[in-house]
Amino acid sequence: MLTTRLDLARIRAARRDIDPIFLDTPLYQCDALGRELGCTVSIKLETANPVRSFKARGTELFATLLAGHGGTAAVCASAGNLGQALGWSGRRRGLDVTVVASRRAPAAKLDRIHALGAELELVDGDFEAARERAVSIAQQRGVRLLEDSLDIETCEGAATIGLELADRAPSFDAVLIALGGGAMATGVGYVLKTLSPDVEVICVQPLGAPALTRSWHQRRVVTTDSTDTIADGVAGRYPIPAVLDDLLAVADDAVLVREASIVTGMRMLLERAGQVVEPSAALGVAAVLEDRDRFAGRHVATIICGSNVDLDAYHHWVRT
Amino acid sequence: MLTTRLDLARIRAARRDIDPIFLDTPLYQCDALGRELGCTVSIKLETANPVRSFKARGTELFATLLAGHGGTAAVCASAGNLGQALGWSGRRRGLDVTVVASRRAPAAKLDRIHALGAELELVDGDFEAARERAVSIAQQRGVRLLEDSLDIETCEGAATIGLELADRAPSFDAVLIALGGGAMATGVGYVLKTLSPDVEVICVQPLGAPALTRSWHQRRVVTTDSTDTIADGVAGRYPIPAVLDDLLAVADDAVLVREASIVTGMRMLLERAGQVVEPSAALGVAAVLEDRDRFAGRHVATIICGSNVDLDAYHHWVRT
Repeated sequence: MLTTRLDLARIRAARRDIDPIFLDTPLYQCDALGRELGCTVSIKLETANPVRSFKARGTELFATLLAGHGGTAAVCASAGNLGQALGWSGRRRGLDVTVVASRRAPAAKLDRIHALGAELELVDGDFEAARERAVSIAQQRGVRLLEDSLDIETCEGAATIGLELADRAPSFDAVLIALGGGAMATGVGYVLKTLSPDVEVICVQPLGAPALTRSWHQRRVVTTDSTDTIADGVAGRYPIPAVLDDLLAVADDAVLVREASIVTGMRMLLERAGQVVEPSAALGVAAVLEDRDRFAGRHVATIICGSNVDLDAYHHWVRT
Repeated sequence: MLTTRLDLARIRAARRDIDPIFLDTPLYQCDALGRELGCTVSIKLETANPVRSFKARGTELFATLLAGHGGTAAVCASAGNLGQALGWSGRRRGLDVTVVASRRAPAAKLDRIHALGAELELVDGDFEAARERAVSIAQQRGVRLLEDSLDIETCEGAATIGLELADRAPSFDAVLIALGGGAMATGVGYVLKTLSPDVEVICVQPLGAPALTRSWHQRRVVTTDSTDTIADGVAGRYPIPAVLDDLLAVADDAVLVREASIVTGMRMLLERAGQVVEPSAALGVAAVLEDRDRFAGRHVATIICGSNVDLDAYHHWVRT
């Protein structure tokens, strides 16, 4: 029995609070990618929905509960994807949504948050600066704050991906999960370790934003002074202690990958699977590229967690 | 009561014969695309599966029935997508699959047919030459021939897309369907006209491959001497009379679009929806681009039918 903040019955119930458009996403074996990587590869696409990332699973759950309790407004800090998701979920329920983001976030993400009718406040500095500002807005306005990875709805919403993977888990040897704040990794990891404990749960983070991975290895919170990665969606510096505790309970490993591997992963996903992805979504492929022997001949699944990418940067990265 | 070769009860039953990996594909409203096109746009993605096109719905049905009757081999002519789909469906059922294709088909399609273990025979000339050769192989070897759009499994397999659209049909004013041989258009059109007759069924073909559209307008088979389009998946010259009869019964309109509109459609699908598509899959968007007034303010759905595209050509097309 795993001891985490998450609960399997609540995760199963969460499916009812999430718009079906975000559930039961494509999951299939991609032979062309597998041939290139020397193993069997299945991909689960969290990009084929109105917000182009997995984050709406969490915001749908959060917004359903908030609206159900009479809430009318919410604020969150976002690297870009959570803000879009909360904007989408809030709009459908008549909630006023404020999103705080770094001025340096990809323009594509900021534009889409704005287009969803959310109030967008930009801050200098990085995601951690946005987090601070969101906290103070919530306090000043008396508005509900949604904190990614800390608020259990973000973890248990993401965990519904785990239910869909677990349905096919006997065929997987390992599941590779992008690691940012930890909501997806703890959510999916918890479900897999509960329902399919033999499947290896491997978290993947960029070398340039290693705080939570280092924390996992050292079993204590390790922060960093800065981040340096194109994977903007996972570039945090201050791991949340409660999330680290959950991650320690559910992850079998946490690995760091180089920027070059992320770029190669993005290019392979385009060339072999026809998928345009943002850098964070290529972390799983990058992990296989950096340790081919570990995965040779095995069946790995990886979650393609988002596709909100500035196309100019994307074209520059994937150009061969 | 529509009189066609298709049957709703058989189409519903077909879902049981098709691997679930090809069913219940993503269908969602894409606001960014809608803003660009001046209407509400929903896209149904038939690209997020192991063969990257809708064709496996038909080949799954065909191969299930063939294997169930003790068949061991099949041959088809293909512009590229049907061959991959039959290769995939045949491989899983131990069928020997031969695919005849034009030497000019996109290398990406030919490579993937080969990788699936199918015997690939290339012919000079176009798709119609491949059709002739497939017929003679079937006769010589006594092997079952699968003829796209003529064999009812290809139409009724594709028609399962219609069931999924019909579930949400009250919200659609029109459905835009790429028109090639006619399997998808007659299949989806039949289901929509049966279950949701108010939804306008509009077929879209390139001006450079207009045979079936012209035939629909003239209510008799019209052939062409050649085709000239980048939409290789829909470039036939000899409409099949029985398919034309079905199309006359189910389509509300059939329109032709210019190559430049197809290219703009592909670029918009990349920039607004993050989807890499082959030219045929952009026909619906192209139709809106060419007649914005017709669709202004309405809710249109279009089927993104395939993503098997040579990336070099693709990059050349979508470069802004």
